[in-house]
Amino acid sequence: MDSTTHLPAANLLAVSKRTYAIIGTGALGGYYGGLLARAGFDVHFLLHSDYEHVRDHGLVIECKGGDFTLPRVNAYRTPAEMPCCDVVVVALKTTLNRLLPELLPPVMGERSTALVLQNGLGVEDQVAAVVGDDRVVGGLCFLCSNKVGPGHIQHLDYGRITLADYKSDGTAAGVTDRITRIAVDLEAAGIPVRMSRDLVKARWKKLVWNIPFNGLSVVLDATTDRIMADPDAYSMAHALMVETVAAADAVGHPVGDEVIQTMLDQTAKMPPYLTSMKLDYNHSRPMEVDAIFGAPLRAAGQAGLATPRIEALYQQLSSLDRRNRGTT
Amino acid sequence: MDSTTHLPAANLLAVSKRTYAIIGTGALGGYYGGLLARAGFDVHFLLHSDYEHVRDHGLVIECKGGDFTLPRVNAYRTPAEMPCCDVVVVALKTTLNRLLPELLPPVMGERSTALVLQNGLGVEDQVAAVVGDDRVVGGLCFLCSNKVGPGHIQHLDYGRITLADYKSDGTAAGVTDRITRIAVDLEAAGIPVRMSRDLVKARWKKLVWNIPFNGLSVVLDATTDRIMADPDAYSMAHALMVETVAAADAVGHPVGDEVIQTMLDQTAKMPPYLTSMKLDYNHSRPMEVDAIFGAPLRAAGQAGLATPRIEALYQQLSSLDRRNRGTT
Repeated sequence: MDSTTHLPAANLLAVSKRTYAIIGTGALGGYYGGLLARAGFDVHFLLHSDYEHVRDHGLVIECKGGDFTLPRVNAYRTPAEMPCCDVVVVALKTTLNRLLPELLPPVMGERSTALVLQNGLGVEDQVAAVVGDDRVVGGLCFLCSNKVGPGHIQHLDYGRITLADYKSDGTAAGVTDRITRIAVDLEAAGIPVRMSRDLVKARWKKLVWNIPFNGLSVVLDATTDRIMADPDAYSMAHALMVETVAAADAVGHPVGDEVIQTMLDQTAKMPPYLTSMKLDYNHSRPMEVDAIFGAPLRAAGQAGLATPRIEALYQQLSSLDRRNRGTT
Repeated sequence: MDSTTHLPAANLLAVSKRTYAIIGTGALGGYYGGLLARAGFDVHFLLHSDYEHVRDHGLVIECKGGDFTLPRVNAYRTPAEMPCCDVVVVALKTTLNRLLPELLPPVMGERSTALVLQNGLGVEDQVAAVVGDDRVVGGLCFLCSNKVGPGHIQHLDYGRITLADYKSDGTAAGVTDRITRIAVDLEAAGIPVRMSRDLVKARWKKLVWNIPFNGLSVVLDATTDRIMADPDAYSMAHALMVETVAAADAVGHPVGDEVIQTMLDQTAKMPPYLTSMKLDYNHSRPMEVDAIFGAPLRAAGQAGLATPRIEALYQQLSSLDRRNRGTT
């Protein structure tokens, strides 16, 4: 196994010796891991179905900022073969989180940190339950990227990561040294980074977009532009955003009403976009219904707030998901 | 034009001389009108696309109780050609109600009664606005019937009509002479009839089934048995029923909580069934979203009751309907 990369971009240099494990080399893990490897970081990729192809041919990343190929990467079929890494990037879909107890411990050393780049709410809690409360940080990705073939990632748009440290009681951790160090690495790899003092607030803020647009894209079979253009779909999206903002208030992590209009304005300017949940649905893959809908719904319920619109959408998506996966 | 039927069932005799106009000779109007004609009533059928075929070949009705053909029927292309009739059966889809001012006046004589066999809420009000408050009665059909070709009706199941007299202030009219007379005619034609003292209550009671099952069948692409079998779909259906029962309470026409379990039990025993709204959707026909969802939603809102689940489903269906009709 060769741990050097073969096509480092000339203008990007690794500023740390930190090693990275990518747990789940798909559209997201492959993209961010590829950028880190290109920048000279020591990156170790866990693969499943693409293992042999990537071992033999490396990764191909089509990218707005310029396509690049990593002809040889550190590819692994099982975590037991991987070295312990300083940062363990959890880049699986949340629908595979039942595998975390098997996948994470082998790559987590004494001083490793798990960076959770997943959708939804409560995902850091799930990782913390496996690796320990003090070894987890969160990252929220604003990324539009697809895997178009084995080891072949197509980056379409965006890419920013918002980093935030994790505390098991849900309170704001502030900007810590460890997220700052990771931020420096990511920026060195060309990944735009923001840092947030309050992980739970950041997650709720992202839900204000994900709940309406992921959910309605599936139920209404619609791209973002159609949801914006249709008066009833728009009205539903707005009402779902209002409920989500109210839920964030109720759980003690207010995101502010103004986020609704800001996000609607941004969405109006986006190119027509098929959400990740709709892509999963179209490909008959499990949808991240629990992380994006179930967990917020439970949190709001525990805080005593009824969110009937989110609940209705959750139930519809759960039903469609079960049907789509052939389990009813 | 020949006003006798050619295949009267031997055991059915017309007990009145009342004449019937069928405004809309589709799956519903063709079926009930056909039964009345077979029983010897003087029935006049208004047709649109099937006019020439039915004029030349009559009606074919496939029926659980025995198929029958009416080789010659009184077929009309416009209401102006039709005689005034004692009972004018409004058998159009509610999505065509904008045509009522053009279709009804020519066939309504001094003593005519309009019998509204439509889905949803407030449909008698729409007819009354055209023909006058004192010339309307309502009928709720529990019928599973399809038009499978020009002048060709396939009756699948059920067929009962619940008759109820109409009062413009929405109060219960009781069992009146005029609905009793119509009931006698319908029974003579082999149509099972019930009479209700309270039209608005009867309409809300029917909505307790139509709102969940029509709506979810479209949004979840599901037959009734799938909705019953899937835990989330079932839970949604139940929650929608609870909201509908609460709305009926709020508008002063309580239907009783026990109707929910009764209907769920009945639905569990039904064969897998594609609702009329789902059939309309699948054939890219307009869905009766306003009559079944919009009108109840407005009524509940005016009574001060929020029905967020019905509202969410209404908005989804409105959006899907617009898209399905190619108007977005």
